[in-house]
Amino acid sequence: MKKFFLLLLLFVFTTAAEAAGVKPKYIFLFIGDGMATPQRMIGNEFSRKMGRGDLVMNTLLFHGTTRTSSANALITDSAAAATAIACGQKTNNGMIGMTPDGKAIPSVAENARDKGKKVGIITSVNLNHATPSGFYGHQRNRGMYYELATDLVASNFDFFGGGGILKYNQAGKKNIYDLAREKGYTVAVGKKAVNALKPGKKVIALAGDLQNQMPYSIDATEKDITLAEITAKAIEMLDNPNGFFIMIEGGAIDWAGHANEAASNLGEVLALDNAVKTALEFYKKHPAETLIIVTGDHETGAMTMGFAGSGKNMNIELLLNQKVSAGMFSRKLQQAKAADKEFSFDDAKKMLSEYFGFKFSGDAKKDPMVINAAELKKLQDNFEKDRLHLAAMDIIARKAGIGWNSGSHTALPVLTTSIGCGAEIFTGFFENTGISRKINTLL
Amino acid sequence: MKKFFLLLLLFVFTTAAEAAGVKPKYIFLFIGDGMATPQRMIGNEFSRKMGRGDLVMNTLLFHGTTRTSSANALITDSAAAATAIACGQKTNNGMIGMTPDGKAIPSVAENARDKGKKVGIITSVNLNHATPSGFYGHQRNRGMYYELATDLVASNFDFFGGGGILKYNQAGKKNIYDLAREKGYTVAVGKKAVNALKPGKKVIALAGDLQNQMPYSIDATEKDITLAEITAKAIEMLDNPNGFFIMIEGGAIDWAGHANEAASNLGEVLALDNAVKTALEFYKKHPAETLIIVTGDHETGAMTMGFAGSGKNMNIELLLNQKVSAGMFSRKLQQAKAADKEFSFDDAKKMLSEYFGFKFSGDAKKDPMVINAAELKKLQDNFEKDRLHLAAMDIIARKAGIGWNSGSHTALPVLTTSIGCGAEIFTGFFENTGISRKINTLL
Repeated sequence: MKKFFLLLLLFVFTTAAEAAGVKPKYIFLFIGDGMATPQRMIGNEFSRKMGRGDLVMNTLLFHGTTRTSSANALITDSAAAATAIACGQKTNNGMIGMTPDGKAIPSVAENARDKGKKVGIITSVNLNHATPSGFYGHQRNRGMYYELATDLVASNFDFFGGGGILKYNQAGKKNIYDLAREKGYTVAVGKKAVNALKPGKKVIALAGDLQNQMPYSIDATEKDITLAEITAKAIEMLDNPNGFFIMIEGGAIDWAGHANEAASNLGEVLALDNAVKTALEFYKKHPAETLIIVTGDHETGAMTMGFAGSGKNMNIELLLNQKVSAGMFSRKLQQAKAADKEFSFDDAKKMLSEYFGFKFSGDAKKDPMVINAAELKKLQDNFEKDRLHLAAMDIIARKAGIGWNSGSHTALPVLTTSIGCGAEIFTGFFENTGISRKINTLL
Repeated sequence: MKKFFLLLLLFVFTTAAEAAGVKPKYIFLFIGDGMATPQRMIGNEFSRKMGRGDLVMNTLLFHGTTRTSSANALITDSAAAATAIACGQKTNNGMIGMTPDGKAIPSVAENARDKGKKVGIITSVNLNHATPSGFYGHQRNRGMYYELATDLVASNFDFFGGGGILKYNQAGKKNIYDLAREKGYTVAVGKKAVNALKPGKKVIALAGDLQNQMPYSIDATEKDITLAEITAKAIEMLDNPNGFFIMIEGGAIDWAGHANEAASNLGEVLALDNAVKTALEFYKKHPAETLIIVTGDHETGAMTMGFAGSGKNMNIELLLNQKVSAGMFSRKLQQAKAADKEFSFDDAKKMLSEYFGFKFSGDAKKDPMVINAAELKKLQDNFEKDRLHLAAMDIIARKAGIGWNSGSHTALPVLTTSIGCGAEIFTGFFENTGISRKINTLL
């Protein structure tokens, strides 16, 4: 009886607290594009091997499982997923911020704006790519980049940050950045300009390029601004008595997933995690007023922790040997070839040792980084076909024990984690539409 | 300030409730062997397609993510996993209820027994297989079946149910069942005998065989007792004023995972889910006193929801066409061949239509169950090699969009869900050792 009484009191208090309006002033929504349990958990092991501990996003207090199907397919695309997450309704693959029959649906970011909160939208890929578009755009097709960019400007949101705007400068149409400036936006391009921004004005804060995505984190240098730094700048710019809603997308996790490139994929997961860490530091200063949610839009690549070829072993630490993305390696190789007309496979082997840590002598049974005969043949064959970068990334992932079973999205539900004010409602099993629906109850 | 105050009060109340000893009287721990997020989520879609709704195990209130590594490998085996889950300490692959250096560790089931609770151990596979053994056994090697069986008898637990005991009758050694009877156990074999059991005595309640596992759920008939029925019997036998701890394993999920057989795998997930449903019905009668936890020990098969061959489509409902396990199909085929010396591939096609729903005429582009030319060749080739059952199960899984990327375990963390008294501590990210450690705080 005592137990019942205590549980009843707990329930009454929880309800009372909710009724009294314990709502988050500051809301962070992180979305890893193509990031489901496998990416987060391989990323977690990778982070441990770096001596960085568990991914911050995985240590958040509440865990939930989020189903990702779209209105017309069990396997969603990023447009339908963004619409579900941002607007709380399922739509058909390809559609942004609209029902399947074409009615615009308000997004949680628009709701937050209308409630007086400042709004920030950040992504490592293009600002008018599918996922960020879901928070401000309403178009029948995700490929309508120019129209989505005009929706971006019309949103009146306070902060856009990250990659550039696709098709911002179309013949016969107004340059999107000119349009944005007319609407009162400051456009800052590059690390220095972004870091110099001060609160007070609406901004489009680009990492470095008017049109393109941010570089892969694995390829970034000190000159590049990180997703975490842009997140910190957004917090600085948007903090105000009414609070804010900030969506931060790790967009290139998906791109590396489609390419089946493990090291770049995990690099992007870590870049997103560093941004989560920045939010968590803010949360620690405002624990009762802050809500952080980390989710994904779908899984990409059917990534597995072990595969038929790996047997019972995984050696994720071997991936630490990869120093650049496959794409960057390919560019470096092209440069080297262009500079030396007699560039040979032996020269390429030196570059493979530098950028992938491969060893071309020694006992492959004792040192997993030693290239065995089959791998050597694969590298040589692909060198001749100008696909050396792809063979190298495949070989190192296999050595690490990471499997890829698809070049597309899959239907695996994503992991949603959360902490802070209202976070307890994000545990359990729910559809992706639940994310904004739950946030809306807290606005 | 008001918000802070309310949160503080909530915290104080939660702590007070815990301090006042709000502890579960009845504890159910379900373990799906080889069941991680993919199995649970493909099972969920399968259950929906059956008109059965979401898996009950997925709808439990709290979700957590459980890391499964063993002391000596990122990819665990079931012995080390059982030890971690049951005893709260990591050990080396292969070891049961012992630290890597061979010290016995008490299990949560032994703790529950020592606190006066009745204890039940149920599995669909052998009662002295790795997972159930972790709850009563202490041996250096999971293969020491006879020694583990003597540990079983020595445990004095109140209820053992499900599959038989491996190596129960060894030359020169006492028959395990005789030993059990001497120690006061009643041994009941078969559905009728098990259903006739009345509370009061310690029992070993076998589904039908002294040595072997229960049949795959997909192959079971009305004559077979289900895991849910054994669970219900255990509840009836073990209910008492001090409460109980019951562990129920879905052991053959793993076996079907190793075999990469989708329909049998999901059938076993559903059989476990029916047992969870039974526990949930009990919970609804005793909500303040009951705790239900559903977890897995590791992933098996690198199962994916979509794969390279499926592109962007999944059609899980097609699996409903498979009526028997691959093994049962093989036995039926052997019988048919033995009965008809002129048994041909055309005869086999009729059986494939009956048991897998394959159609050998029609337009494969319009009806996914129509066998295309490549599939036909695969079936014919494998018919000649006596591997028709394997080809058929592979083809139907591929049609459904289910991928398998390994025949072994993988390192993907498992999903842990829970409801009831104390369930809130099972959300978040924790090691598999956390399961029994958390339960121990509630004992």
